Formats: sequence, C-alpha cells, structure tokens
Amino acid sequence: MSAGWFRRRFLPGGPLPAPRPPRPRTSPVPYRRPRFLRGSGSCSSTADSPRRPEARPVRCPARGRALPWNAGYAEIINAEKSEFNEDQAACGKLCIRRCEFGTEEDQEWLTLCPEEFLTGHYWALFDGHGGPAAAILAANTLHSCLRQQLEAIVEGMVTTQPPMHLSGRCVCPSDPQFVEEKGIRTEDLVIGALESAFQECDEVIGRELEASGQVGGCTALVAVSLQGKLYVANAGDSRAILVRRDEVRPLSSEFTPETERQRIQQLAFVYPELLAGEFTRLEFPRRLKGDDLGQKVLFRDHHMSGWSYKCVEKSDLKYPLIHGQGRQARLLGTLAVSRGLGDHQLRVLDTDIQLKPFLLSVPQVTVLDVDQLELQEEDVVIMATDGLWDVLSNEQVARLVRSFLPGNREDPHRFSELAQMLIHSTQGKDGSLTGEGQVSYDDISVFVIPLNSQHQGSSSH
Amino acid sequence: MSAGWFRRRFLPGGPLPAPRPPRPRTSPVPYRRPRFLRGSGSCSSTADSPRRPEARPVRCPARGRALPWNAGYAEIINAEKSEFNEDQAACGKLCIRRCEFGTEEDQEWLTLCPEEFLTGHYWALFDGHGGPAAAILAANTLHSCLRQQLEAIVEGMVTTQPPMHLSGRCVCPSDPQFVEEKGIRTEDLVIGALESAFQECDEVIGRELEASGQVGGCTALVAVSLQGKLYVANAGDSRAILVRRDEVRPLSSEFTPETERQRIQQLAFVYPELLAGEFTRLEFPRRLKGDDLGQKVLFRDHHMSGWSYKCVEKSDLKYPLIHGQGRQARLLGTLAVSRGLGDHQLRVLDTDIQLKPFLLSVPQVTVLDVDQLELQEEDVVIMATDGLWDVLSNEQVARLVRSFLPGNREDPHRFSELAQMLIHSTQGKDGSLTGEGQVSYDDISVFVIPLNSQHQGSSSH
Repeated sequence: MSAGWFRRRFLPGGPLPAPRPPRPRTSPVPYRRPRFLRGSGSCSSTADSPRRPEARPVRCPARGRALPWNAGYAEIINAEKSEFNEDQAACGKLCIRRCEFGTEEDQEWLTLCPEEFLTGHYWALFDGHGGPAAAILAANTLHSCLRQQLEAIVEGMVTTQPPMHLSGRCVCPSDPQFVEEKGIRTEDLVIGALESAFQECDEVIGRELEASGQVGGCTALVAVSLQGKLYVANAGDSRAILVRRDEVRPLSSEFTPETERQRIQQLAFVYPELLAGEFTRLEFPRRLKGDDLGQKVLFRDHHMSGWSYKCVEKSDLKYPLIHGQGRQARLLGTLAVSRGLGDHQLRVLDTDIQLKPFLLSVPQVTVLDVDQLELQEEDVVIMATDGLWDVLSNEQVARLVRSFLPGNREDPHRFSELAQMLIHSTQGKDGSLTGEGQVSYDDISVFVIPLNSQHQGSSSH
Repeated sequence: MSAGWFRRRFLPGGPLPAPRPPRPRTSPVPYRRPRFLRGSGSCSSTADSPRRPEARPVRCPARGRALPWNAGYAEIINAEKSEFNEDQAACGKLCIRRCEFGTEEDQEWLTLCPEEFLTGHYWALFDGHGGPAAAILAANTLHSCLRQQLEAIVEGMVTTQPPMHLSGRCVCPSDPQFVEEKGIRTEDLVIGALESAFQECDEVIGRELEASGQVGGCTALVAVSLQGKLYVANAGDSRAILVRRDEVRPLSSEFTPETERQRIQQLAFVYPELLAGEFTRLEFPRRLKGDDLGQKVLFRDHHMSGWSYKCVEKSDLKYPLIHGQGRQARLLGTLAVSRGLGDHQLRVLDTDIQLKPFLLSVPQVTVLDVDQLELQEEDVVIMATDGLWDVLSNEQVARLVRSFLPGNREDPHRFSELAQMLIHSTQGKDGSLTGEGQVSYDDISVFVIPLNSQHQGSSSH
C-alpha cells in the first residue's frame, strides 16, 4: 500500500468510490458454523442454519472430537441482536513446507519441495459485524495467508538468527553483526508474517465481498504455536489471557475508537477531507450544543494525552469523530472497533463518508515463551470474543478456571466443559459467580488452550 | 496548528520556505550558564563565558544558595565537541495567580487578581544541538509559558473534579457525570497545560531564532511539583528516574528516531514529498548497496513491529530515513532526537529537506503521586541529560545514590555533592563505580531532587 494509493482511494479527486456494492458477480458467502462443531450433540438441529429464537443453547465440539492440543471450545448466539451468530472460529494444524533453493547456477529459481518442514497450531476467533460474511471469509482464509507468509520466510526461521539475505548469501562480511545489533530474532519474522497475513486476508475479504455484493467486517484474534512459542495476534476487541495458578497475564489489548483515539484524530488532522465537514475531530466530555457556544469547555486534540479548555465555536457542535463512553464508544457514530478485517464498503449512514481509512487491519502481536514457563498442570490460555469480557473480568475468569479444572482432571472433554461453563456464567444462570450477576446478550465464543497438553493433543481441521 | 498550515508550511506548492535564516533583525541570544550558578566557587572565572579547553571542571551552585526543595545540581561541559556547553538548566518557584470571575452581570469579563493562588516548583534541563541558542531561549521561556497555561485553567484545577465548563456554569445537569465517566482528573489538566506550554515555547523559539538569525534546537525535560504530585514532562533523550531504598522507577522514556520509528515512517508514507526522492522510508539492518539488488533482505515498514523480507529494488538503495543503531541512530542522517524544541530552520546538509515536520515538540508526561509514596528519608528524583545515561544505567545511578546519601546526612549541600559525584563517575575517575569504566565526552547536567525535603527547602530563581 502506498500513500498515492491511499489518496486515490479515499480522498476527493480520485476516482469516485462506488457508494453501494456493485451487482454481485459471484454467489454470496454461505452461512455456516465452525467445521469442528459438526456432529456435536447439542447442535444437530441447528448445525448450519441460523438461530431459532426459542432456543439459545451453548454449543461445543462433540465428545471424541479433539482440537489441537486438546483445546476446548464453546459458543452461544446473541439474544436476537442478529439473525446469525456473527462470531466464527477456526483451528487446526499449520503445516509449513520448505522452499528449497536450487544449486548455485539457478539460484533465482526456487524448487518447492512439498514435504512438511515445520508444524505449528492455530486457533482463531472472528467477531463479525454488519453481517456474518467477513468473519466466515476470515475463518476460511486467514490460516492460508499465514501459511503462505511463513513458507516464504521459513529459510530465515530455522537458523539461530535470521540472515540478512533470505538466501543465506553474505553480501557484507559483517551482515550477521548488523542483524545482531538490530536485535532481530526469529520471533520477529513470525510477527512480521502475522502482520502481513492479516493485511493480505483483509485484501482477500475486500475482493470477495465486492464480488459477491456483500458487506461487513470482523475482528480477529489468533493464537499460533510455533517453535516453542505462542504468538497472540489481535486486531479488534476480543481478548486472550494466560491463567496460571498464581498469575493472570493479558496476552492482548483491545483496539477500539477509545484506545486508538490519538491515531484516529491524527489521521483526521492530516486528511480533514475524510470527515467531509460533517464531524469534528475534537473530543469533548459530551456532544456540544448551542448553549455551549462561547463557553470554555474541556477538550482533547490528537497531540494531547491531557485535557484542556477551549472556547466553543460553531464547528465544535458537529458530531464527534469518536463519540460515547466505554462499550458505547463509536467511530464516526458507526463502529465500536478500530482494527479488524473487511468493512471496505462501510459508510456513515446516508453519507459517502468512509470508515475504512480509519481502520487498521494490522494486529498487535505478543509472544509467550511457553518453553520458558515451567508449565504447571493447569496453565491455560483463554481466548474469547468481547461478549465474555463485557461481563467477566480477567480475575473472575481466572477464578472460574481455577475452581473448575482441579476437580475435573479425568475428563478428556474438560476444556470444552470449562469453555461452556464460562459462557453459562455470562447468562445470569450462575449469578453468584459473576458477582454482579451481569448478563451478556452478545454472541460469545471461547477457546481454552491447555499449554501442558501440547504433546498429547491430536489435530483436526 | 491545522493540517492546512502543515501542508502550506512543509509541502511543495506552499510558499517557498527560506532555505537560510534571513538577515538578523534582533541581536543574537547571548550565551550564559544557569542563573543559579552565579557566585559558585568553581566557576567564578568562567561563569558566563565559553569553556576554556584546558579546564573541564564540574560546576555546582555555591554553598548557601538553595534551590527549590534544597535540590542539588551539577554540570560539566563536553570534551571539546563544541565551543559552548549546549546544556542549559532552570529551576524556581511557580506562582500561579487566580483569574477570578466577576459577578453574574459581567460574567464575560475576567477580573485578574494579582495575588498568588497556587504555588509549585519547577526544574528543567535542556540539551541543545546546533548551537546553544535554543536551549537558552527554552530556559528563559518555558516556565513562563507553563505559568500562563496553568493560570488559564486554575479555576478548573482547584475543584475535586474539573468542571465541564471552566466558568463552573452547568449547561447540562449531568455535566459532572460526563466528566466523571471520561475519567478526567485534575492531573489531566496539568498534563494538558504542560503539553500546550511545550508547543507554545517551541513557537516562541522559532520566532526568536528567525528574528535573530540563529539556528539550533534542544531537548526538554521538566519536573513540576504541584498539589502533592510531581509531573515529569519529556521531549527528547534526557531521563528522570525515582530512586528509593528498594525501588528504581523510570519517570520518563526517550524519544529518538529509533523509539519513534513507526510514527516517523508513517509520516513519510503519508507525505512522501517530505523525502524529496532522496531517502527511503524503509528500515534495513544496514544501508543497502548495488550487490544487494534483486536479493531478498530483511526490512521493516511503518505498520510493522516484526521484520520481513523484500526483494531489493533500486529505490531501496537510497539513504534511509532512519539510519544507524542505538546512540548513533540519526533522523535523515542529521538528528539523534525526534522530539524537542526549535530546529525550525534545520535542513539536511546541502538540501532543502526539512527536519521539523518529523519532530514533535509535545512531551510525554508521567505523574508521580508523591503524597501517596510514604516517603523515606533518602527518596530522590535524578534528572540528567543523555551524557550521564550513555555511561551509567539506572541501576548504577541508584547504587551510587544509595552509597552516597546515608553517610552525608549532615551536609546541607549534599544533593549537589551527589550530582557532582554522579558526573565524576562518568569521567573515568571512579572506574570501579561504573563497572566498565566508560567515559562520557558529552555535556552533562544533573538535578537531584530530594522528595522528602519539599517542606524544608527555600526557593530561588
């Protein structure tokens, strides 16, 4: 992506973007639930069809259907907010083949050996909005994008230190020293591959949705185990945490209009055209009105962490670029997340103002060095969409995990049981567990990844 | 500052910026050392004149000259890198007057009562480059900018919670609730005032240097005590740390082309014109050359935290936007810091490529809640320019502090003695203390602020 591309795509003077999706050329993306739920008991009647309003069961994989590392999974559809469950999930083995270089003579030709070279595992949650299509495409596509990205650099991943040149050729004798001084490690290549895979997947979704005349977007939270490390890549407001006997550690942070306020205001400062004169980029404690004119009120601009006062002018009465508090905060009055995949066609209602320029598809990646952890029997990673975290804090989830696992050591299905129990705790059925007994009406999907069973679990796709 | 202003000022098509400073209209900023060094013993002969090469003494305030909170100070000039000591320092009492509102009838008129209302204390270090002028102007100006900013909002600072309207008028009954929900506290107003003061000071320096036909810039590190809190605002590569018996806590982080790589690359992505086709915004482990053409080499772009490989094209052989490692890292081959004041005229040697658009004058502010600390006898904040930290780690400084203070409790001048001792430790005179016995050839200035003597110290300006 170049700045020129950005300007042509989003700014006035470029070719006019189509205000509505063009006539479909391919068939729409069919709705489905995750593949690994097929044959699960509680869901036979609704396996691949939309929710029936009268029933809102918690669904998990069938007993005997093992996910990678014997991970657990459960999901629940929202309380009639949308016809479909807009969450999607995927997991499986990640098989990375080696691209071997030929002999010196034909170095510019790569000989692709189809044999498996490195293997990892992959778990992903996608929380859709504006329809289920983007999340389904992401669940179908992102792991392939990641595999391709990793295969393109696998030669660099298997040496102690990534080589300056992927070919291993040393143009400068001190090349390894330059790489050393920059502190570039193998995990930086995996981080780079995850960043590129998210962006590529976003482009695929944009093309597919345009071709099928559909719309929508989704968040993406991905965990990848590779070479003894767990990489957690997040774009959106899902969350992953590590729960151990004596520790709760966040493995991701949320990207919302509030947490990315400065980046978003900065873009509106650089390209005011993006607001089309309809929004103000300034933040105020509430939307201003006529009575505030001429008063000095609290405000914040893109370069400010603190707050100051400004004299209210007429342009300050416009609708704010970022409006609302906490879970209610919206970008351009429309979207609750600031990173994710899709949303290429999304516009502010009844205008031509686009959301996409303000959204990032690139994830933030954190690395958990599992091999260094001195793993204990019940160390798990909990990944869940925002519906869970709206109602349960990290500490509450950790308490539920610690209260459930020790008493259920013999049950091979216990990690899905745990996922199911976590979801039940958000439905007001176990009021005592959540303290305030809050209820979530959102779609919720949960993976429970047991770190200690990584050598026992089988894989499925 | 508006985006339009930015485009007119820095992008082609706007009025041509003057490539060289215009003919001076005012007299140049005279060189001087900090005012509080006047009359100090070790410096009587060189008090306000440039360094004499034969002597490189460590200077500190005269015994009996108390700085705010009985703080200590010491400085040393660089080893013939420049004619002048380009560091500057300032400290003093901050007297904030109240702007009282009149009666209901003439609410739009402010009655300025000249009486002192709130008092704080202020310590500041400025590390100049390209000449001493910017640092001297900053030392003369920044505290006034800050006082003005604070006086403009002092009505909002003295209530438990900042009011939505500075006048205290409640336009909406739930205004206090909106402010509460945004989590806006009094300290956010002080942070906002510091951010605005740095920017205003930057503008003053720009005007003054243009008028006097001088050039240069400086970093700025400021500590302000106010209402029981210590605010540390930093723009540049100086550093402040808190040293306690059992704790070393960084109170600032450094802003260099390396630490701000993504912001700087992002700007070059948005406005490629700023590089005038002479630089590449991409980061490589080393500068590329002809032999690298067509090879796949490690690189990083603005949206990447990780690394990836790209096939080298001709444009990748250009000089990198950010080049070099660690202390050697330079922005556009020219500048080692990415935030600070001044540098309005700075250009890449023999080109019209400006540095200023890539520099931020806004500081990062951290807040130390001194009243909550359970202060111990020897809790101090150490502020110093980068020359100290090039040679001593936070932990080494903490060890030196802890080894010095307990044995010198009776000496009222001991905090300046400590500052002096820290500087001596960078001169290879106490090799055993620094471990590797590294030597600093840079200007160094150090404040030692004893947190426990805040009610004992007198103030001076």
